[in-house]
Amino acid sequence: MSETVRVVVDVMGGDNAPIEPVKGAVEALMEREDIQVFLAGQKEVIERELEKYPSCPRERLEIVSATEVIETAEPPVMAIRKKKDSSIVVGLNMVKRQEADAFVSSGSTGAVLVGGQVLVGRSKGVQRPPLAPLIPTKDGVALLVDCGANVDARASHLVQFAKMGSIYMEHVVGIKNPRVAIVNNGAEEEKGNALVKETFPLLKACKGINFIGSIEARDIPAGYADVIVCEAFVGNVILKLYEGLGSTLISKVKHGMMTNLRSKIGALLVKPALKETLKAFDASEHGGAPLLGLKGLVVKTHGSASAVEIKHAIFQCAQFKQQKINEKIEKYINEQDTEEVDRKE
Amino acid sequence: MSETVRVVVDVMGGDNAPIEPVKGAVEALMEREDIQVFLAGQKEVIERELEKYPSCPRERLEIVSATEVIETAEPPVMAIRKKKDSSIVVGLNMVKRQEADAFVSSGSTGAVLVGGQVLVGRSKGVQRPPLAPLIPTKDGVALLVDCGANVDARASHLVQFAKMGSIYMEHVVGIKNPRVAIVNNGAEEEKGNALVKETFPLLKACKGINFIGSIEARDIPAGYADVIVCEAFVGNVILKLYEGLGSTLISKVKHGMMTNLRSKIGALLVKPALKETLKAFDASEHGGAPLLGLKGLVVKTHGSASAVEIKHAIFQCAQFKQQKINEKIEKYINEQDTEEVDRKE
Repeated sequence: MSETVRVVVDVMGGDNAPIEPVKGAVEALMEREDIQVFLAGQKEVIERELEKYPSCPRERLEIVSATEVIETAEPPVMAIRKKKDSSIVVGLNMVKRQEADAFVSSGSTGAVLVGGQVLVGRSKGVQRPPLAPLIPTKDGVALLVDCGANVDARASHLVQFAKMGSIYMEHVVGIKNPRVAIVNNGAEEEKGNALVKETFPLLKACKGINFIGSIEARDIPAGYADVIVCEAFVGNVILKLYEGLGSTLISKVKHGMMTNLRSKIGALLVKPALKETLKAFDASEHGGAPLLGLKGLVVKTHGSASAVEIKHAIFQCAQFKQQKINEKIEKYINEQDTEEVDRKE
Repeated sequence: MSETVRVVVDVMGGDNAPIEPVKGAVEALMEREDIQVFLAGQKEVIERELEKYPSCPRERLEIVSATEVIETAEPPVMAIRKKKDSSIVVGLNMVKRQEADAFVSSGSTGAVLVGGQVLVGRSKGVQRPPLAPLIPTKDGVALLVDCGANVDARASHLVQFAKMGSIYMEHVVGIKNPRVAIVNNGAEEEKGNALVKETFPLLKACKGINFIGSIEARDIPAGYADVIVCEAFVGNVILKLYEGLGSTLISKVKHGMMTNLRSKIGALLVKPALKETLKAFDASEHGGAPLLGLKGLVVKTHGSASAVEIKHAIFQCAQFKQQKINEKIEKYINEQDTEEVDRKE
């Protein structure tokens, strides 16, 4: 059997806490035996939720008390510093002390990002840990790296994002020799802002990644690349526009179907098939976004994450640990950096 | 009757040249009497196309000979310099010499952008002329400014974009007191990259615009703002992702409807109503993108522009001229700039 992976789940974070995080954790435990879960949060709340699942394998589940809750609106740095007994700080500290392998939270993105860096800490050689969600494409998914806190990142950071993203896509998502592209305002090599122009030749020269050049935003949903590299401001725009445009278009489609009696009847017939197809284009089906390059694993799920998303995020953690992603990242980042220094000298 | 507006239409540019540009121009002439059109391109090609429209009011139409064609792949600066007898250079020079009020082209975006600045020239006080397409929102449109060549723009440029965009939305599109927002990676005032952090207080202090703060990309399709301010790299990402995500999602919907017999029958019933709704979300229905802040008007339509889009772009030019947008922009830009300097002193 595979190595057991220990995951802390933040039970207090997100819009659907505590119900969905607890449900997702229980379902993960029931589906796979190589998982052990710690539920971090208010003890009595968790106990009450767990009563719903009498067949839950309690021997692989432990409650970890955390009395405080970090709200989404709180300034992250201050929250992490002050609320020592919050589920986020307690969970991240367990990863830091290696009592757990991974931490999954639907809570404050800012607090998870800051806490991940400050409490868990960066792997040796990693300059900036990026947040890397999977976004749906026409026939699969792509990793968008970075959507985190590193706005105005430097070229060397983007090169590391490309490396870490490649490892993740290959070994966690299972895409062989993933195609890496940098987001640009045109397909030609001379296009780009100052950052892209500086980064492009570095990526081209980078060993061990399959760099295919620039990608225009238009070609992201079509699935032209597997690892989409950009700095966090642009990554945020892409991720948020995906969500916003998707929901606006789908509401337009629904509205269009309700225009007249003929279309209403058609809508009834079409609905089940359509639902199935659009589900594949729903970001929440693809688990959470890992914060790459830390000494442990931190995964941020959507604020509105359902039990299914939490469960997938836990499975993602198992894959991450069993595939030794952190060891691979640390080895690759430091190997390559040395080579690059050598070449310059 | 309204003042006659003289528009040069590039007959050689775009995927559908010369058929659609000629058709669009003829339809514009037949629909409105206050429009005069110059068709720039190869004379015999245009004559042949015009034979299709015997009832075209030829007294308001003139052919302007231009023997060369600038291809989309050509480096823009070189193309503008070398191909003096191309439809783009000939058309822009007519605007420069005030023989025409406006130029409409579906040809090379780069050549139109460069040519507009170099040949037509900027209005007094305008630092960078932005390209400002209208993008569809849930119940209307928003102006995305800038999607042009000004990547890595400065804060002062963005402030001018906001001012010019406001005037355009109010007087050409007809939205009273348009809401102006800056694209940001979060709604809070402390969010943003260096450029946004520098621009935000300037926009807040700017008189004469209705600045409502930051907008996350998620809220753009929902229609939370009328003028969306960003530098061109981000603008390009937004515009291209709109196109790409829209077409991917619609192909997903179509595919979903064809899953089984039941859904296929439903699709037949739903199709007409759905087509109508999705048409409203099609960028090409909203004419072309003006290059704001020039001494004349230059409008870039999609490379794949149809006659309808060309026609709408010509109407846009008429509205622009009759509403004296350039005069309004020049007055506002220079007034405000003086005030700002005064305040600093």
